[in-house]
Amino acid sequence: MSVIAENINPNFRDLFKDKFYFTNNEYELLLSHFQIKHIRKRDYYLKAGEVCKAKAYLNKGCARNFVVDERGHERILFFAFEDWWLGDFDSYYTEKPSTNYVQAIEDCELLTISKENFSFLEERIPKLKQWYTYKVTRSASASLKRMEEMKTLTPKERYLNLLEKHPHIFQRIPLQYIAAFLNIEPQSLSRMRKQLIEKP
Amino acid sequence: MSVIAENINPNFRDLFKDKFYFTNNEYELLLSHFQIKHIRKRDYYLKAGEVCKAKAYLNKGCARNFVVDERGHERILFFAFEDWWLGDFDSYYTEKPSTNYVQAIEDCELLTISKENFSFLEERIPKLKQWYTYKVTRSASASLKRMEEMKTLTPKERYLNLLEKHPHIFQRIPLQYIAAFLNIEPQSLSRMRKQLIEKP
Repeated sequence: MSVIAENINPNFRDLFKDKFYFTNNEYELLLSHFQIKHIRKRDYYLKAGEVCKAKAYLNKGCARNFVVDERGHERILFFAFEDWWLGDFDSYYTEKPSTNYVQAIEDCELLTISKENFSFLEERIPKLKQWYTYKVTRSASASLKRMEEMKTLTPKERYLNLLEKHPHIFQRIPLQYIAAFLNIEPQSLSRMRKQLIEKP
Repeated sequence: MSVIAENINPNFRDLFKDKFYFTNNEYELLLSHFQIKHIRKRDYYLKAGEVCKAKAYLNKGCARNFVVDERGHERILFFAFEDWWLGDFDSYYTEKPSTNYVQAIEDCELLTISKENFSFLEERIPKLKQWYTYKVTRSASASLKRMEEMKTLTPKERYLNLLEKHPHIFQRIPLQYIAAFLNIEPQSLSRMRKQLIEKP
């Protein structure tokens, strides 16, 4: 399905037009190479073992990115909300099978662009390379920060961080996923929330 | 101190000349903008609060990258060996103070290049931008992989991974640092090693 400009998250337009100075023509050209993709709640955008062949902008909805450990437990690496890019970075770049699952938590609307289309556009809009370097630098920093958080913060502090960034998280993310993200039992999370409500 | 080509890790030369097709002139120009820096064992290349203003190639030695949590505990994010790049990625890019410490575990020899010199060279050698995008993509992937490892592997599995990649690790990294990296007590690490030796 082709993309209709009015339905796009304004952050998408601002990113390319305001931050990277795309002209109207360049922005239209870019947009014409994206496709809209809908993923129903609980369906997968990507599964471990598949090669990630596209970039996907999360226009509406939220998703979880997880891995499965050798003991069969799902380990949530992060949640993705509107204005994130979904996929497996490493798999996209190396064209090797992904180790990650990306599953819709709500019905999701994605704007996707294939690797071929992206390369084609990079030749025509050199600013797109700058954007990609910026994006990948931000991703690298974000991953390092998350690793730092995992090493330095208690589950309670990580929970409060998540709540601060996404205050409506409990309306959007099931409790057992938040617990899995924090590496704690759902009962411990319930207790933690109760304590925090009693002593704000 | 200026850089003498013969003393450089052959991987450095191969990276730019073989992988990114730098001509001899381009490679010489690149090299002439690097400086050699020596860091004594236990000294710091970077401390939290400082802005990271250079890229640094680890030509000889090894180092640890750590953060200090609110309770004052050092948490080792990773060890760096020959052929790594040191620094705080986020601080280099955003010019905000670093949250990381980078400390020499052995006497280290670094090849450093300032942000100004790097920008200057990027204008003269466009291939350097490709290298940077490649490097940053690899860093982002590596961080995500480490995050996955932290979420999915037991301390024993993470220890075996480290041992596989750096079999001489016990000659190079003090036991208490390996334990801190694995988030376990040094006694537990000793016990784990003993068991692994008895049942290989």
